[in-house]
Amino acid sequence: MTDLLYLDDLPVGRRFVTRTHALDAAQIKRFATEFDPQPFHVDEATAEGTFFQGLAASGWHTMAITMRLMVEGVPIAGGIIGSGAELSWPQATRPGDVLQVHSEVLENAPSKSRPDRGRITLRSETRNQRGEVVQIMTGRLVVLRKVIA
Amino acid sequence: MTDLLYLDDLPVGRRFVTRTHALDAAQIKRFATEFDPQPFHVDEATAEGTFFQGLAASGWHTMAITMRLMVEGVPIAGGIIGSGAELSWPQATRPGDVLQVHSEVLENAPSKSRPDRGRITLRSETRNQRGEVVQIMTGRLVVLRKVIA
Repeated sequence: MTDLLYLDDLPVGRRFVTRTHALDAAQIKRFATEFDPQPFHVDEATAEGTFFQGLAASGWHTMAITMRLMVEGVPIAGGIIGSGAELSWPQATRPGDVLQVHSEVLENAPSKSRPDRGRITLRSETRNQRGEVVQIMTGRLVVLRKVIA
Repeated sequence: MTDLLYLDDLPVGRRFVTRTHALDAAQIKRFATEFDPQPFHVDEATAEGTFFQGLAASGWHTMAITMRLMVEGVPIAGGIIGSGAELSWPQATRPGDVLQVHSEVLENAPSKSRPDRGRITLRSETRNQRGEVVQIMTGRLVVLRKVIA
C-alpha cells in the first residue's frame, strides 16, 4: 500500500504514472449508448462516414477512464477532489488503444485562510500504446495538509 | 424533429435548454464504482465523514449526464464534436437532484482555411431543481457550414 499524500508531499514537478487500461469497441459503445449516443461512438459502419472516419470513444469516456486510473495511481489523502479542470483531446481514442496516464504537479498553493488544506494544479496526459497523447487534462485539486497536533 | 444546425444557425447569444434528468444514489454509485471509486461517491455512510459530508456524484458523472442531455437537446449537424473544454463544479451534485442544461453560444468563428467548417464556443450550465449551478462547462466545438453547391 502506498502512503497517502498530503499537500507537502506534492511539490511542483512530482510525477505519477498509472497502470494501463485496454479499451475495446464494446466498452466504447456501452459508455456512449448511455452518455454520448452519437453515431461515431456507437456504430462502426455509420462512424465511417463521419468526422472521425471510424469508431472513436467519447472524450468523456476517455476522461472517465483517466479518472479511474488516477484514483488508483495518485494516492492523495482525502481523495482526488477537483474544483475544476481544462481538457483537450489532440486526437481520437480508438478501439484497441491501451491507455495510461502521466501526471505532473504544476502548482502547489497552501490556503491562506484554512491551515488544514491547499490546492494543487495537476497536468495529466492520457497516452495510447504508441505514446501519442489522446487527452490533456489540467485539474485543480483540493488537498489536505498534514496537521501536526 | 428539430432541424439540424449548421455554423450560421449558431450566432453568439443563441440559447438551448435541455430536458431534465433525475439522478439517484444508485446511478451515482454505479458510475463511480466503474470510473471514480472514491468513498464519497460509492457509500453513503463512509461519505458522511469526508469533504463532501454525504454521498455526491463524481464530477465526471455530472459531465456525462450533461453530455447526454446536450446530445438530445442541442441538434448540431454532424454531432457535438469537442476539441476541448473547461469545467468547474461550484457545488456538489447529490442524490435526488434533477439536472437540466442551459447553454449559450459565446463565440462563432468560421475557419479561415476550411470553408466547410468553423468553431463555436458554447457555455453550458448544469442546474439542479433549485436552479443552483452544479457545473459550468465551456466547450470548443467543431461545427459544419452548410455548403451551397
